[in-house]
Amino acid sequence: MILLDGRKTSNDIKEEIAKEVQEMKENGERVPHLAAVLVGSDGASLTYVGSKVKACERVGFESTLIQLPHTVSEVELLETIHDLNDNDEIDGFIVQLPLPKQINAQKVLLAVDPEKDVDGFHPTNFGKMALDMSTFIPATPFGILTLLERFKVETKGKHTVVIGRSHIVGRPMSILMGRKGFPGNSTVTLTHSYTKDIKAITLQADIIVTALGVPGFLTADMVNEDVVIIDVGITRVTDETKAKGYYITGDVDFENVSKKASYITPVPGGVGPMTIAMLLKNTLIARDRRSQSGK
Amino acid sequence: MILLDGRKTSNDIKEEIAKEVQEMKENGERVPHLAAVLVGSDGASLTYVGSKVKACERVGFESTLIQLPHTVSEVELLETIHDLNDNDEIDGFIVQLPLPKQINAQKVLLAVDPEKDVDGFHPTNFGKMALDMSTFIPATPFGILTLLERFKVETKGKHTVVIGRSHIVGRPMSILMGRKGFPGNSTVTLTHSYTKDIKAITLQADIIVTALGVPGFLTADMVNEDVVIIDVGITRVTDETKAKGYYITGDVDFENVSKKASYITPVPGGVGPMTIAMLLKNTLIARDRRSQSGK
Repeated sequence: MILLDGRKTSNDIKEEIAKEVQEMKENGERVPHLAAVLVGSDGASLTYVGSKVKACERVGFESTLIQLPHTVSEVELLETIHDLNDNDEIDGFIVQLPLPKQINAQKVLLAVDPEKDVDGFHPTNFGKMALDMSTFIPATPFGILTLLERFKVETKGKHTVVIGRSHIVGRPMSILMGRKGFPGNSTVTLTHSYTKDIKAITLQADIIVTALGVPGFLTADMVNEDVVIIDVGITRVTDETKAKGYYITGDVDFENVSKKASYITPVPGGVGPMTIAMLLKNTLIARDRRSQSGK
Repeated sequence: MILLDGRKTSNDIKEEIAKEVQEMKENGERVPHLAAVLVGSDGASLTYVGSKVKACERVGFESTLIQLPHTVSEVELLETIHDLNDNDEIDGFIVQLPLPKQINAQKVLLAVDPEKDVDGFHPTNFGKMALDMSTFIPATPFGILTLLERFKVETKGKHTVVIGRSHIVGRPMSILMGRKGFPGNSTVTLTHSYTKDIKAITLQADIIVTALGVPGFLTADMVNEDVVIIDVGITRVTDETKAKGYYITGDVDFENVSKKASYITPVPGGVGPMTIAMLLKNTLIARDRRSQSGK
């Protein structure tokens, strides 16, 4: 069994990016600049955005954090987004979700210039991905593809089963694994809450990507020998014996499934750390594209 | 066995549209206007575009056919598209494919205003479809959904197997059948040229959508009793005994598979006739959306 170590891989990627940024500086080029918009002061959101800003600093990106009160109006938020679209100093930006109720998240999403949409959530980018065009791939799926690529996990002709059809993981993964190229060329089955007899399906899988958020959902009796397991579930489970009062766990019964798997992502330390690394990668790609078009 | 009669269903839809157009006229409203751009004079393309124009006449739409020589430059074609985008009299338009070699089809596709893209091929519309937003669904997949809907074929919790991953049929169908709602909520498996042991997969299917273009590919031993068959393959097979010198056939061994199927589309007369009806439907939707925004 080989551990798909996301912590190490994401550190490798960050170092590679830092090196590129260093070269940009030495060549007198402008370095990538990521902006993050945070509405309100939700604890988890603050933590996520904080990690993203810190990651930018680590690789030498410029970063800008725009904090808006939770009472901000939709019009004001849209104005902020238009300003970021128009600001030539900014290569890419994200709007941290969730947004407060007075704001239509879909409207906000659609207002982001697709060329600065480093989260890859804009329909134009999502459609380009589904139509095999060059685009931004959302960070979590991009992180999974990168793990498969760097660990040289064969995907061609394999049967990949995706559990969960969310817009940010399940649906894009089901599309990406069936595209031409590597990683890709898999036969892909997308399963969800209406799927009957999921065990009969997971038992046929060479690769399983699970993104349910149900701790211990995938048990050893549901998988074949030598299966590849990508666990995207991240759930906090209350545990008074832990210093933080909780522990983090995925969708997979790691202890038992890992005995059968050929490759498996741990949780934490698997897909999670890859996400921020891929956001940085997308920002670097945005910078490169913009500089090619003279910006 | 129930025949999914696309000829009858498409006629029903055209009559419904004609009635709506009649009401528009009586209310003094502007009727839908579809334009088609045809480059060159390829026989098959002429036939397709001709059928579309004729279908517009039949339901009372206005139509405009723009014919450009096969020597047209990319710049000239793009200008034509910008003119159509800007022309408030036009509700929707299509660019008949294939295009000559000197023209980058992707560039042309991206130039179409998504709000007039009644073929549903623009990435913004494709992405909206994949993200469950309101959009234009490409005509062939839209036709299949409509057949399933009108014949009340249950899709929820069923296992749909899609054969072929083309941008215009296989990929969108694999997305649409797994979306929430009806038709949808299927467990979906997308298969293609790299799929191993396709028979083991089709034998698990409650619904099979095949879009390969290989006559007789799907045989009776590959399907279960009561399977639902959607045959999108359309191949001309040379046959001197026929008046036209050929006959049209699908991917399915109809004679034998139909004995096991609960529902099946004939070829011709199944999915084919639905395509033009759904193009008209998309044009009507475009007109409605535009009139709601005061155009």
